[in-house]
Amino acid sequence: MTDVFDHPWLGGLFADPDMAALWSPQAQMAGMRAFEAAFSRALGRAGLADSARAETAAKAAEQTAFDMDDLRAGTGQDGVVVPRLVRQIKAAAGDAADAVHKGATSQDVIDTAAALAMRDTLTLVDARLAQLAAALEDLGTRFGDRPLMGRTRMQAATEITVRDRIAPWLLPLADHRARIAEARPRIVRLQLGGASGDRRDLRDKAEAVAADMATALGLENPARAWHAMRDGVAEFAGLLSLVTGTLGKMGQDVALMAQQGIAEIELSGGGTSSAMAHKQNPVLAELLVTLARVNAVQVSALHQAMVHEQERSGAAWALEWMVLPQMAQATGRALAAAIRLAGQVRRIGTPE
Amino acid sequence: MTDVFDHPWLGGLFADPDMAALWSPQAQMAGMRAFEAAFSRALGRAGLADSARAETAAKAAEQTAFDMDDLRAGTGQDGVVVPRLVRQIKAAAGDAADAVHKGATSQDVIDTAAALAMRDTLTLVDARLAQLAAALEDLGTRFGDRPLMGRTRMQAATEITVRDRIAPWLLPLADHRARIAEARPRIVRLQLGGASGDRRDLRDKAEAVAADMATALGLENPARAWHAMRDGVAEFAGLLSLVTGTLGKMGQDVALMAQQGIAEIELSGGGTSSAMAHKQNPVLAELLVTLARVNAVQVSALHQAMVHEQERSGAAWALEWMVLPQMAQATGRALAAAIRLAGQVRRIGTPE
Amino acid sequence: MTDVFDHPWLGGLFADPDMAALWSPQAQMAGMRAFEAAFSRALGRAGLADSARAETAAKAAEQTAFDMDDLRAGTGQDGVVVPRLVRQIKAAAGDAADAVHKGATSQDVIDTAAALAMRDTLTLVDARLAQLAAALEDLGTRFGDRPLMGRTRMQAATEITVRDRIAPWLLPLADHRARIAEARPRIVRLQLGGASGDRRDLRDKAEAVAADMATALGLENPARAWHAMRDGVAEFAGLLSLVTGTLGKMGQDVALMAQQGIAEIELSGGGTSSAMAHKQNPVLAELLVTLARVNAVQVSALHQAMVHEQERSGAAWALEWMVLPQMAQATGRALAAAIRLAGQVRRIGTPE
Amino acid sequence: MTDVFDHPWLGGLFADPDMAALWSPQAQMAGMRAFEAAFSRALGRAGLADSARAETAAKAAEQTAFDMDDLRAGTGQDGVVVPRLVRQIKAAAGDAADAVHKGATSQDVIDTAAALAMRDTLTLVDARLAQLAAALEDLGTRFGDRPLMGRTRMQAATEITVRDRIAPWLLPLADHRARIAEARPRIVRLQLGGASGDRRDLRDKAEAVAADMATALGLENPARAWHAMRDGVAEFAGLLSLVTGTLGKMGQDVALMAQQGIAEIELSGGGTSSAMAHKQNPVLAELLVTLARVNAVQVSALHQAMVHEQERSGAAWALEWMVLPQMAQATGRALAAAIRLAGQVRRIGTPE
Repeated sequence: MTDVFDHPWLGGLFADPDMAALWSPQAQMAGMRAFEAAFSRALGRAGLADSARAETAAKAAEQTAFDMDDLRAGTGQDGVVVPRLVRQIKAAAGDAADAVHKGATSQDVIDTAAALAMRDTLTLVDARLAQLAAALEDLGTRFGDRPLMGRTRMQAATEITVRDRIAPWLLPLADHRARIAEARPRIVRLQLGGASGDRRDLRDKAEAVAADMATALGLENPARAWHAMRDGVAEFAGLLSLVTGTLGKMGQDVALMAQQGIAEIELSGGGTSSAMAHKQNPVLAELLVTLARVNAVQVSALHQAMVHEQERSGAAWALEWMVLPQMAQATGRALAAAIRLAGQVRRIGTPE
Repeated sequence: MTDVFDHPWLGGLFADPDMAALWSPQAQMAGMRAFEAAFSRALGRAGLADSARAETAAKAAEQTAFDMDDLRAGTGQDGVVVPRLVRQIKAAAGDAADAVHKGATSQDVIDTAAALAMRDTLTLVDARLAQLAAALEDLGTRFGDRPLMGRTRMQAATEITVRDRIAPWLLPLADHRARIAEARPRIVRLQLGGASGDRRDLRDKAEAVAADMATALGLENPARAWHAMRDGVAEFAGLLSLVTGTLGKMGQDVALMAQQGIAEIELSGGGTSSAMAHKQNPVLAELLVTLARVNAVQVSALHQAMVHEQERSGAAWALEWMVLPQMAQATGRALAAAIRLAGQVRRIGTPE
Repeated sequence: MTDVFDHPWLGGLFADPDMAALWSPQAQMAGMRAFEAAFSRALGRAGLADSARAETAAKAAEQTAFDMDDLRAGTGQDGVVVPRLVRQIKAAAGDAADAVHKGATSQDVIDTAAALAMRDTLTLVDARLAQLAAALEDLGTRFGDRPLMGRTRMQAATEITVRDRIAPWLLPLADHRARIAEARPRIVRLQLGGASGDRRDLRDKAEAVAADMATALGLENPARAWHAMRDGVAEFAGLLSLVTGTLGKMGQDVALMAQQGIAEIELSGGGTSSAMAHKQNPVLAELLVTLARVNAVQVSALHQAMVHEQERSGAAWALEWMVLPQMAQATGRALAAAIRLAGQVRRIGTPE
Repeated sequence: MTDVFDHPWLGGLFADPDMAALWSPQAQMAGMRAFEAAFSRALGRAGLADSARAETAAKAAEQTAFDMDDLRAGTGQDGVVVPRLVRQIKAAAGDAADAVHKGATSQDVIDTAAALAMRDTLTLVDARLAQLAAALEDLGTRFGDRPLMGRTRMQAATEITVRDRIAPWLLPLADHRARIAEARPRIVRLQLGGASGDRRDLRDKAEAVAADMATALGLENPARAWHAMRDGVAEFAGLLSLVTGTLGKMGQDVALMAQQGIAEIELSGGGTSSAMAHKQNPVLAELLVTLARVNAVQVSALHQAMVHEQERSGAAWALEWMVLPQMAQATGRALAAAIRLAGQVRRIGTPE
């Protein structure tokens, strides 16, 4: 509970429950269960396992109450949770154990669960981008024609309108939505490769199994496993940071506009100070800057993680685990904060 | 000449003359001249300037021999070269000075020149991606069926083929090309906004001037100026780093494959050592890792630069100037080195 | 619980309970209580508050059972927990409320708590550096004279000894300890500045109050508040990343040495695979690389946060909250993992 | 000439000739010549080479007019310039060729040259820190007692003085100087290891040779070669970025103070605009922010480069070559710009 998203009081500022839910251990576990169940059923349908046993195996994957201490100890031992998870599912499946995970590998399970989280994240981000666009358009309707001093290089330039100031907050949102739509099929992909990524153990049924699973899970079915091709993951991180970058620009502008002596905006609901009761701090505006800068740093990690050696890099892969949930939550929170900040605007433009 | 791309001897390893030419001062100057010429002519066609004077102004923009000492001193003074550049063009234009730059601003000139460089960079990168794909497909044809030990987490896993090892070098290249095609219209954009970005001085002719210029320059004509919307620039940087990330993975694999005791690849043309005449160092493979990691760092700067305050941020903008030419050259060089490295392969796969 | 350090199963790989305890909400709360108690008592001793009331206020700071929902809501509202924390302490202090926090500010409380965490972190890191050095010296004693192929640029060079390979894992540890000792007084500093950082409300007693508090809390007493001087924080982050960098080099070497075909090291306790029962993955070695690379990314955030505007930047400050606990935990875990990895070595050097 | 430091007009803003000279190819070549000459002479004095031949070899190292095309081609081939450099020196040395470079390796030459550049950089940075401190103290003398509105979280807080605003620009400078003094012996180190870093070819004379060279070159003589221990290099980069971070904070403050409506500072010599003749842009203040942010990004690369595998990593090492000269120049320029900016202050504090 040391990180700001899960923190007992910092969570009041940073937490985004909707996004946190998508990356929670519960969601990750659900994703892994879904992978194993879909895999067992696909084995059955492809004739690689007896179909009744396949269903038993799938049910075991879906319903086994896991021994979490064992999973934790196994992760420490193996560097990944899946060996123990599979062992527990097999134990629960009894005679159907041979229809569990056979021909799959740890990375298939974890990356597919991550793909599901990335899919749902893109959907949530997209929806909030639309909401924020509507909120900013509403600000434009209410205040857009008001005059405002244009400021370039931190200096007064020529007079513009409020609409001009808002435009760079608003216009990129549609571009971000287009980027998400375009990138989605490269990100939201089933992972299925087996031990060394070549699907060899699934023999001539590999494509059938993959197609079946992709349909069941609501994912794209790529031509082959992406174990060692992490461009989709880095692209995902880049999308998130592009979004927070735009919101950070909005936040920086609002904080500058709210300065005494400038007074281009009036907000309700600002933060108070422990030392000065009169202060109204533009807390959400500052938060947008923070989240933009933190994502701008994190995106570097996912690009470093593309140097993913051979058929699987434990080192590069774990880098993704550390950074992706944080970036997703930062992005979710930034969108929620921006929407709320837009709603706090009482006035924008030079006071009359 | 301290940077590795322009360096007298390090350039032998890092320089990519084709890419350097796109970001050279000569190219930047040509881009700025092209902007000013297209702008003056568009003013003339739109009736905002006398058409003969507009042509005189355009010619002055295209042909004036600039006093470079003055441009340098002006950049130090003004933080941007354009005020002095315009002053010199106006002096050369004589009576037509009122058809020079009037209604434009520094950022229009410099960003349009950058858009031209980004356009040509994407074209060069795309062409080399195709070349590299062909080279890797050729390797697949020659060696693809050979057996190779799959290696996961740096440990021998199950046997694969050479084709499996090459796939993660090859398959993302097509995705990168698709990304470039999709992103191009968001990156390759005319910049035209005037002092505060609202095109106010061009009045009701603004759209006509912009459309005219976009056609003349071979750029997209966005709905408004992107002075303070830097998502296209960050997206461009992200594309470059995705490309070098894939190539860095290839380089890391090759360096690992070339180890004594592993010997999965045999290369011609490796580097020698000052201390050990027998060594054959996989210089280009290492270079790919270096260039991937350096771009993975630099991409962070462009995301930081999205926090671009108000109508123009001198601070955030200059960050782009520092980093973009370096990233483009690293990417160009990585592609050239990867193509050459593919050509150095004498054998790939377990020795027979 | 989405981050890897607090995660139900990933924690088995990433968690370091000792370090987590130093950055936990409990520790942060204890640090804030300690600040407020020391402050109230110092006010009393300096004659700025009645001494009995000061003690009552201090006891309230130490013992109040906080309404955590209120603290969370307040953090969301104010951007910082302190206003509500102080309100609750004041309510508990009753008549002594005027001896609570008067003349202090939010940043004093939070930064002092952070300084305590940084102090204890440096102590823990230092102790583990000594432990790791002893473990590596022991490896040197056991295996140091054995021959090993030196490898430069991933190629066999000239024969060295095991001691030569270990030296770059071991020798920097003493330098890291020296760095910590030198930097400690710049990092482990009381924060006390009041509303705008000038200690104005403490009048001529400011220095006495600060000296008193520094003694009570076991911190340095700097000449003035460091509200807007964040070099100590960035230096702290740099120290952590230097440590993990050295350990990452060790991890990378071990992973390379453990390769089939190289076999320069034999480890006990490697991880198993869900797909291949025979595998012995060098999990801890890979983890060291991951943690080095993640810290190498995060350090950038703390350097960005040095651009801390005016007397207090909400935006830059919160960046520290997001990153410091993660870096500390990554460092603690890396040290623990390196010590354990050293203990897993069964053989190092070319097999006999 | 694409990078901003060497650029024909951008150099007017970014170039720092004094710092550029320390990292120029000329300086690097001088450093390499100095290494080879000191090495040959030390061989002679240690009895590892005939002393007359050693002097002939040293003279050849110092005076040979190199064939630069060959050096460039060799760098492309070998990944490092030294093999060809040595070949040319040997050719020039004639009979004394056996007293050239024998027992040394490429990394010895290049890292020693880098250590010389780092040494001189620290000296220059230190001197400028002192100059800047004097300039800021002078501002304090002239304007320190004037009132100023304290601003926290971008909002007016309580009244402070100009001295309070300046303190966070000034006070860290002494800490930076202390850091440099402490770190210097860890950074300014002779590199001498030979092929695999163990100085084996120098046999029992290794320590004598190293001590002799260290004295001749004005460098520390570490216990062993630091080929694969890059903590000193990362520490050097961290020091530079700490310096620019402080200056970036100063720049951000000045840019905020110069806003219309705030007017807390009045500067001479601001930049003009191509569109608005009346503007006075705080160009140097913005530049300080840019340089702080770019160094805050680059520092990440040097921490990544600490994961330096085995006895020498071509990949990690070249990352240093790409980034160090840029960071040094950014730091040099930031210091020069800050000194000049301090001199541009006509008034600081609320207008009377």
